Amino acid sequence: MINFDNENDTVVDQEVVKKLKGWGNYIQAKLGFRNHWYPVGFSEDLEENKPKPIQLGGEKLLINRIDGEVFCIADTCLHRGVSFSEKIECYSKDTVTCWYHGWTYNFNDGKLCDILTDPNSQMIGTRALQTYPVEEAKGMMFVFLGDVAEGDEPPALGLDLPPWFLDEDRYVMGIGREIESNWRLGAENGFDTTHIFIHKDSSYLTARDAPIPLGFATEQKLELGIHDKDGAPKGVVDPLMGNYRPVFDANIKGESVLSSVRPEGEHSTIYQVSLWMPGILTVENHPEPDITQVEFYVPIDEKRHMYFQILSKKGVTEPEQIHRYKEEFTSLHEPLALRGFNDDDIWARKASQAFYDDDYGWLEEQLFEPDHNLIAWRKLASEHCRGIQRAPRTGAARVVAPKKE
Amino acid sequence: MINFDNENDTVVDQEVVKKLKGWGNYIQAKLGFRNHWYPVGFSEDLEENKPKPIQLGGEKLLINRIDGEVFCIADTCLHRGVSFSEKIECYSKDTVTCWYHGWTYNFNDGKLCDILTDPNSQMIGTRALQTYPVEEAKGMMFVFLGDVAEGDEPPALGLDLPPWFLDEDRYVMGIGREIESNWRLGAENGFDTTHIFIHKDSSYLTARDAPIPLGFATEQKLELGIHDKDGAPKGVVDPLMGNYRPVFDANIKGESVLSSVRPEGEHSTIYQVSLWMPGILTVENHPEPDITQVEFYVPIDEKRHMYFQILSKKGVTEPEQIHRYKEEFTSLHEPLALRGFNDDDIWARKASQAFYDDDYGWLEEQLFEPDHNLIAWRKLASEHCRGIQRAPRTGAARVVAPKKE
Amino acid sequence: MINFDNENDTVVDQEVVKKLKGWGNYIQAKLGFRNHWYPVGFSEDLEENKPKPIQLGGEKLLINRIDGEVFCIADTCLHRGVSFSEKIECYSKDTVTCWYHGWTYNFNDGKLCDILTDPNSQMIGTRALQTYPVEEAKGMMFVFLGDVAEGDEPPALGLDLPPWFLDEDRYVMGIGREIESNWRLGAENGFDTTHIFIHKDSSYLTARDAPIPLGFATEQKLELGIHDKDGAPKGVVDPLMGNYRPVFDANIKGESVLSSVRPEGEHSTIYQVSLWMPGILTVENHPEPDITQVEFYVPIDEKRHMYFQILSKKGVTEPEQIHRYKEEFTSLHEPLALRGFNDDDIWARKASQAFYDDDYGWLEEQLFEPDHNLIAWRKLASEHCRGIQRAPRTGAARVVAPKKE
Repeated sequence: MINFDNENDTVVDQEVVKKLKGWGNYIQAKLGFRNHWYPVGFSEDLEENKPKPIQLGGEKLLINRIDGEVFCIADTCLHRGVSFSEKIECYSKDTVTCWYHGWTYNFNDGKLCDILTDPNSQMIGTRALQTYPVEEAKGMMFVFLGDVAEGDEPPALGLDLPPWFLDEDRYVMGIGREIESNWRLGAENGFDTTHIFIHKDSSYLTARDAPIPLGFATEQKLELGIHDKDGAPKGVVDPLMGNYRPVFDANIKGESVLSSVRPEGEHSTIYQVSLWMPGILTVENHPEPDITQVEFYVPIDEKRHMYFQILSKKGVTEPEQIHRYKEEFTSLHEPLALRGFNDDDIWARKASQAFYDDDYGWLEEQLFEPDHNLIAWRKLASEHCRGIQRAPRTGAARVVAPKKE
Repeated sequence: MINFDNENDTVVDQEVVKKLKGWGNYIQAKLGFRNHWYPVGFSEDLEENKPKPIQLGGEKLLINRIDGEVFCIADTCLHRGVSFSEKIECYSKDTVTCWYHGWTYNFNDGKLCDILTDPNSQMIGTRALQTYPVEEAKGMMFVFLGDVAEGDEPPALGLDLPPWFLDEDRYVMGIGREIESNWRLGAENGFDTTHIFIHKDSSYLTARDAPIPLGFATEQKLELGIHDKDGAPKGVVDPLMGNYRPVFDANIKGESVLSSVRPEGEHSTIYQVSLWMPGILTVENHPEPDITQVEFYVPIDEKRHMYFQILSKKGVTEPEQIHRYKEEFTSLHEPLALRGFNDDDIWARKASQAFYDDDYGWLEEQLFEPDHNLIAWRKLASEHCRGIQRAPRTGAARVVAPKKE
Repeated sequence: MINFDNENDTVVDQEVVKKLKGWGNYIQAKLGFRNHWYPVGFSEDLEENKPKPIQLGGEKLLINRIDGEVFCIADTCLHRGVSFSEKIECYSKDTVTCWYHGWTYNFNDGKLCDILTDPNSQMIGTRALQTYPVEEAKGMMFVFLGDVAEGDEPPALGLDLPPWFLDEDRYVMGIGREIESNWRLGAENGFDTTHIFIHKDSSYLTARDAPIPLGFATEQKLELGIHDKDGAPKGVVDPLMGNYRPVFDANIKGESVLSSVRPEGEHSTIYQVSLWMPGILTVENHPEPDITQVEFYVPIDEKRHMYFQILSKKGVTEPEQIHRYKEEFTSLHEPLALRGFNDDDIWARKASQAFYDDDYGWLEEQLFEPDHNLIAWRKLASEHCRGIQRAPRTGAARVVAPKKE
């Protein structure tokens, strides 16, 4: 177990953390993990020289595309703490100027390169905003929410993605939405196998003729794939097939009260689900056999997360294949699976927020047998996270010394 | 003085409680008293098999009528803390099933009797929700907000009602409203004799030709009826007649500035008022000689209470008498007395909330002679309450062992 | 350095105060200074016998004009803490009667002179509301937010005004607005010379043909006029002329990116600016050579201030001069300078609030050379304030013994 310094952590009730030794780091990660990569949007949504504010792990950041490359700096002037994004002023393509007193910073290294109101100031060149590494892949922009010492490089992006996510023959389409719940309620709702009960009335079932069970009866201790090797993505894989017997008929006091359509072939609806660091669900063969649904739960702040719903399709490389996949995505998968079906999940996360909001829910919850995959996930995350995102003060900027040239 | 354990009480500022030795339990009862009966609604408003969420003393509860009988359980699933009432699912008439993972509980004993998503779970039959005794009387539903040990019975409902409330020759009509103030500001406004000053412009006075004084001058130490015998309702009775001289002319610096119409007969407008545990006002001969107005101030949470305004009329037993009383209630008493006249009281309670909201108002208030009936009430309530309702965490459930069979 | 008792101060984070030894009193004055005069409105807006509630330094006050003279009392009844202003009832011209139980207080000395509901109460004559001295000058009403021992007088009003403000040949016109930021962000924005950068696009510049620079380059240690003599107004004067070189062309990495119209005469746009206790800016020769703009930043509560924008014109004494000045004010200065130009300042204050809201902004800000006048102001204010306004409880009244007669 890694020990992180708890000082100045004002986000999580420390009484709760003390009582949860087994997955304390996870409970503290109310704002997400530090020193991990998170997606912040789709590449096509960031135009050249049009800086956009984002919020990630409670921090206010500003991303901008310059000559095609994306940069990310803190969205808070060092001088008196206002946000650049309140009124964006860029007088050269590689800088942003604070609207208040003209302090001007480079997007690439965050350095205070000029002060338009007092060009004689000794501050110029001796202060810098924190910058965050950015990478683009599969049409998405990823920000490394962490600290990189001078001369160092952040860990590879691929370590914070499902193992096959960057494969060349996969094509990715997706949508992003802001959800009013902590990110962990998103991740756990997705990985939790018995939450399938909420989908029992979904129009997805009838429209797609896709029978799903009402639940998953446990018949043994769960067998889970624990991916915790150094230098590889960390995650928990639940193969479903061996672990559970799908429930198509539900009984109360021995009487059948509810049933769902049983599929013709044995287990044909059951897929493997996995949860990867720093908070990525993969559901294989869903919503179609050759597609894997990937869900990123990205902390905005304590009470909100960005929900990126991605469909990664294998064997889509040629322009015509891509064209066909885009049409299929827009006309079928987005309305029926990502919105119709997953809207139930969004509703469930929001309904869980009140119980976990003050952290005591983690103590009072009563987990049952099928939740053992969640416990495995919480332990893995506590053990293998590279840090805990601490609460920055509202609007606070980290002042850093500029890099040497 | 009963000593209740203050641990984990986060509702009331303990600095204030320390300084108010004489009625400390009352000050702590921001959420009401525990182990008392409270009305939660009118019987006719709860249909068979249509569970309804209520909030009482800060707790979220679910009531349901099954084969005519009313039951009350916690409205929070033990598993992951969501409220059943977010999406009510009942697959048999005597159970509720959580919409999230299918955990299913009996309404009568709270026991987790089945889990629809995993019928193999060891949790089944070994956990239970807290249940609350319910009684119906005089067309109202009463919930016992308290803990009853196995094999025990709660105290009789009649101990938490005015002594004559359940008399057979009385017929009860009433309305209920949610008010944005602590319940004690409701109770004290009603019992406080000099609050009559706020009604001086009420259209009730002219419409009903019902002269009321501007105030009540104290001429001696108040003589109050203190009902504190074991096995009987506890309350304070202020006979008014002997205690005060009604004020019909008000002076400032010796000059008359305001007067109200003096009634023809001596003291004809003055009635006996009483305040009963756990927070019930009775005003005898109001709004008519054969009617007693009964007001229940029922804590919803720290800042809100349900205000049940009941008119209990004596000698109404025959169908035709009932029919006539209903018409009289609807056309006369409800619009003129319960709404017109008492709307002033509601306004006054809300206007008092800010001062008492952080508890320091109880220290800073400057009570005067006519308020001695309030002091008697506070002492009686502190002495004779059966417990203080503690703050449950938002959405928290009390997990209880199921009763043995 | 004066030491004020920090006990019971719950407004400012004491961790921050500990780290800011140089201007700790200023940082604590989130609600303003105690024992100073503050303007609360324009005389013409308070009619005879029409009491008006105001909020000053977090306290709720009630002002009233009686036979021409203005009085100020606490707007909270001592009895049960409600505000008189919820429903003003005055039954004699020199008193206010609480709408709830008829407690009646003198406006002049705050004494509880009568209780209309119980004329026999022993409370009458033995309790009093806190009163606040009021003075009227230059068409404005000033309240002394402080404590004056019996027999003492408050300090002269003139000590809390710019030195020439009360001069007989000056005529004052102005407006008042409520702004959603702490009062200090108003004062500092106004005195801060380089905030001029925000006005670069103001229509005031083109409409009035009034060129202003983009900034002020520092070329030396600032020379400031420190007014700290006993028995005279305290303030900091920044002469501008000697301290800075106005910047009309701004460069980024050596390339010109922005320029403003350079005035024809040397330095013709530069005026002397000063900041006076308890929070009054003066800008000389603005918006016209014979006018001085005076801005009062008056704390309402921690997050709001009243912004009084006054134009004091010299040599206006004759009726016809006054008439002409009023027309000029209404048609020209108010729309173009006070609203058009200063609306930028209001926007900037609001945008700064988040950073300073929890007090940590005072630690994290990175001041630069032109901000040395702000530092001088903070030190002067910490040294020479007569007290710090503490947080009264919401709705709390100070009970005082009535003055002896």
